[in-house]
Amino acid sequence: LDYQHVQVPFEITLWIMLASLAKIGFHLYNKLPSVVPESCLLIFVGLIMGGIIYGLNDRSPPVMDSDIFFLYLLPPIVLDAGYFMPSRPFFENIGTILLYAVVGTIWNVFGIGFSLYGICQVKAFRLQDVSLLHNLLFGSLIAAVDPVAVLAVFEEIHVNEKLHILVFGESLLNDAVTVVLYKLFRSFCEMPTIKSVDVFAGVGKFFVVGLGGVLVGLSFGFTAAFTTRFTKDIRVIEPLFVFLYSYLSYLTAEMFHLSGIVAIISCAMGMKRYVEANISLKSHTTVKYFMKMWSSVSDTLIFIFLGVSTIGENHEWNWPYICFTVIFCLVWRALGVLVLTFFVNRFHVNTITSKDQFIIAYGGLRGAICFSLVFLLPDFHRKKLFIAATTVVILFTVFVQGMTIRPLVDLLAVKRKRESAPTVGEQIHIRFLDHLLAGIEDISGHWGQYYWKDKLEYFNSKYLQKILLREYDQPKSSIVLLYEKLERKHAIELAQAGQLGHGLAHPSFLSSSDRTVITDQKLEDTPNPDVLDNMQEILARNLYRIRRTGPAYNRHTLPGDSEPTEHAKEILILRHKSL
Amino acid sequence: LDYQHVQVPFEITLWIMLASLAKIGFHLYNKLPSVVPESCLLIFVGLIMGGIIYGLNDRSPPVMDSDIFFLYLLPPIVLDAGYFMPSRPFFENIGTILLYAVVGTIWNVFGIGFSLYGICQVKAFRLQDVSLLHNLLFGSLIAAVDPVAVLAVFEEIHVNEKLHILVFGESLLNDAVTVVLYKLFRSFCEMPTIKSVDVFAGVGKFFVVGLGGVLVGLSFGFTAAFTTRFTKDIRVIEPLFVFLYSYLSYLTAEMFHLSGIVAIISCAMGMKRYVEANISLKSHTTVKYFMKMWSSVSDTLIFIFLGVSTIGENHEWNWPYICFTVIFCLVWRALGVLVLTFFVNRFHVNTITSKDQFIIAYGGLRGAICFSLVFLLPDFHRKKLFIAATTVVILFTVFVQGMTIRPLVDLLAVKRKRESAPTVGEQIHIRFLDHLLAGIEDISGHWGQYYWKDKLEYFNSKYLQKILLREYDQPKSSIVLLYEKLERKHAIELAQAGQLGHGLAHPSFLSSSDRTVITDQKLEDTPNPDVLDNMQEILARNLYRIRRTGPAYNRHTLPGDSEPTEHAKEILILRHKSL
Repeated sequence: LDYQHVQVPFEITLWIMLASLAKIGFHLYNKLPSVVPESCLLIFVGLIMGGIIYGLNDRSPPVMDSDIFFLYLLPPIVLDAGYFMPSRPFFENIGTILLYAVVGTIWNVFGIGFSLYGICQVKAFRLQDVSLLHNLLFGSLIAAVDPVAVLAVFEEIHVNEKLHILVFGESLLNDAVTVVLYKLFRSFCEMPTIKSVDVFAGVGKFFVVGLGGVLVGLSFGFTAAFTTRFTKDIRVIEPLFVFLYSYLSYLTAEMFHLSGIVAIISCAMGMKRYVEANISLKSHTTVKYFMKMWSSVSDTLIFIFLGVSTIGENHEWNWPYICFTVIFCLVWRALGVLVLTFFVNRFHVNTITSKDQFIIAYGGLRGAICFSLVFLLPDFHRKKLFIAATTVVILFTVFVQGMTIRPLVDLLAVKRKRESAPTVGEQIHIRFLDHLLAGIEDISGHWGQYYWKDKLEYFNSKYLQKILLREYDQPKSSIVLLYEKLERKHAIELAQAGQLGHGLAHPSFLSSSDRTVITDQKLEDTPNPDVLDNMQEILARNLYRIRRTGPAYNRHTLPGDSEPTEHAKEILILRHKSL
Repeated sequence: LDYQHVQVPFEITLWIMLASLAKIGFHLYNKLPSVVPESCLLIFVGLIMGGIIYGLNDRSPPVMDSDIFFLYLLPPIVLDAGYFMPSRPFFENIGTILLYAVVGTIWNVFGIGFSLYGICQVKAFRLQDVSLLHNLLFGSLIAAVDPVAVLAVFEEIHVNEKLHILVFGESLLNDAVTVVLYKLFRSFCEMPTIKSVDVFAGVGKFFVVGLGGVLVGLSFGFTAAFTTRFTKDIRVIEPLFVFLYSYLSYLTAEMFHLSGIVAIISCAMGMKRYVEANISLKSHTTVKYFMKMWSSVSDTLIFIFLGVSTIGENHEWNWPYICFTVIFCLVWRALGVLVLTFFVNRFHVNTITSKDQFIIAYGGLRGAICFSLVFLLPDFHRKKLFIAATTVVILFTVFVQGMTIRPLVDLLAVKRKRESAPTVGEQIHIRFLDHLLAGIEDISGHWGQYYWKDKLEYFNSKYLQKILLREYDQPKSSIVLLYEKLERKHAIELAQAGQLGHGLAHPSFLSSSDRTVITDQKLEDTPNPDVLDNMQEILARNLYRIRRTGPAYNRHTLPGDSEPTEHAKEILILRHKSL
């Protein structure tokens, strides 16, 4: 037996296997996941495993390594989140999200830090040796809402899109703030004196860390898109580039002390559109599937490790400090959301309701990021107290808040996510309004959201697409693509049911051109051939005229590009058919 | 800048990126890969990179770590090979493959070992300090044909299926022999005296290592299939199990000093059938795609590392020893193939032609396995000579043989692989003959290949499928599945071309039931409705009778299982339609 030789990969594989089997186990008994969120169950499994290890070895089980967490477990989840980010609601609410993420997090950090320092001044609690800086450092790591925990809970409760993106977007983008504040306070702790210059440097760092992350991410994203232009002959390594470039963007950002989370999200959002167009359909299925699989495994491992790491002798228990931490986390978040939303609502027509505000405040779950950060703290005599407080806050938010948020959403009747996808009619209207609003903003000289979106779209179609896409044709409208997809799906379903021969009279199936559909639909109602022919002719002529006068609208092209010979040809064909 | 922190994942990602970009580079210039095999190009890139590293650092570039090779780079390639192994030609030629793999490899090891020992006795060469045991040890590592190198070259030259499976199967299964002989000689080198008991133990080990590998692999494979029974609610982690279980089988086999390659191949071949039936179509696409991608990356990395590791000061140059090693490798392999094929041909009707024999002998490429094994040798004063000889043999076989094998195949007009897939007619005939031959073997009491295959199939459908498959219906015949697939494909193509409305008259498209096809086909030829009705009635009645008398043939069920009420119902429906 040669266990030493294979130990590392063997144990990693076994952990992943355990995580996957645990997941299967929960889903075998259907009722469980509908009551308790999966994250709670996984932490519970971790706690049991940690207990077993502790019992057998009689020493603390291994703690989740912060390096492993930040370098290997976190990136897949963030990549998945960025790649599947619904870009429309995200960009529509980007201002509000940034406000929550930047101002809200700073508010929480200082709020929690200062009020805990106040608690430390009470002599009866015996906490006078915890300095203000240490409290602020602790505040900076405990204040940040955790994307992994939020995702795990919010994916199951299906609140409306806007509410979801507000909480989730905040949890992702606050990484930049957390990184800066945490590192700032940590370096302050080690400095003998703090000058006012250092404080200003810290403020400047915000922008460097955040915008630097965006820049790193976008440059890697565009490089990835450019690379996939040349993979036509070796389709099989296409999915690789998506993963490699996004991981490199994360690592590069981390290397330069920028926000890795922001970088990987910008990378994923930047490349998605072009990569999707360049790679084959099968490659894309693989990318999507593997991303989901990977993030699901990472997520599972994080919660199990969180449970395992909780058990042990790393904790120093101090009732007042721990209880007040939990209370302050809740209170300051609630206050922050109230105040910020007050300002947000003054500038928006589509306001955030008080129910939504409650869920935003209540959904501020803490998770593995806090946990990893607290272990990364430099050694000082109260570190174990901070670890205990962090563990309690995480367990409290994940178990108590995570388990009660679903009943609360039901009770408050918070607006849910609509079940069905938008209809084609809705899509057409949304697009129409976008163009209209862009036009209005252009005319009125108001540089708003639609104006910039339109400018970006113009830049994209004029330059980016030509560089990054392999086959740069006139891009197909998403409605046409949707139609093609529906048609294909329908054909497959019919073929599977063996009804291709019988289903032909069904009008929705025949619609290869508008004309055919309509005539066939009429066919069912009025089987009189004379009336039919007449109708067909009228429709054919009129429909053709409509189509001719309405070329695809685009603000950047002039109408009248189609050739007259094409018209004549088409009319000839139509005539020929109607004879 | 904090490079230390991200060094490990950053460098791994960069290496993979380099490998992928190199692959894209070759394919951009289309002519190159058609002349020079990709493996040669990759080694060449590696040599250049090694030269650059050597030039910059002024010391030998890092050598490919044997642990990394065996634990991380080799398994994906072998898994891919096992999963996509064409099982029919493999099992049809299993006897010949085993003969080549076991007897052939032993022949080569002892042939090369003893003749090199003979060379060492010539005083002028100054090699008298290399003992017989060391020569045999060297023979055991240099004799084995390398699956990675063989796959890289043979995938591009498209020889006929039998020839391909003979060379490729040998290269995979000789792993058991290589493992045993290599470890045996290595332990003999360290023993003071060798008893005859040890030699017999070595012979016994063959069976343990080989059959043990098969057992480990099959048990993991069946567990994997059993696990995928329960993944219905969490489709997204299905692909994971395929990779986890096969990797575990490899690691477990390595842990117990069994043949990891044999284990992973048995695991892949064992689970494939059941896993495919259990998991969703998208999961399966992901599994296939990711396996190909992973093996392609591993393969690329191996050849690049091979090139990089070649540069440096690890070599001791001795002209006679190195030249004779190359010559003996060629000569003993050629002799071995000739002698073994002589015996094989005596017992087979479908003989191996002399052209095929030449290609089998010439296709005996050496690769990274030899290279990793020679670095794993215990330190002794002539190790650098062995490293040099191994490097030369690998480069010679990959470059000279690898580059000339394609022109030789053209020149000799070796039978190629057929381009098209077998037609449905051929498939029906093959299956019919299988059943027929199984019946004949059963009657004549000859326990041949078909008899065992039939028994296995019986065991599979009676027990294994019931345990391992989620939805155990009557299994669909592969011909029916093929038909469904074609129908679906056709429907998609029509939908894409927008011809769903027009293509309906085409008979092959309508065939939802035999009757409809035939009547429609007649419809085109004879549009007379009276004749048609008559014909339809005759056909309907006759076709029904044929279907009734011919239930799906199965040696293990008795005819006459269908219920009489079903018959009456069907006749009623047919009548109703014809009215």
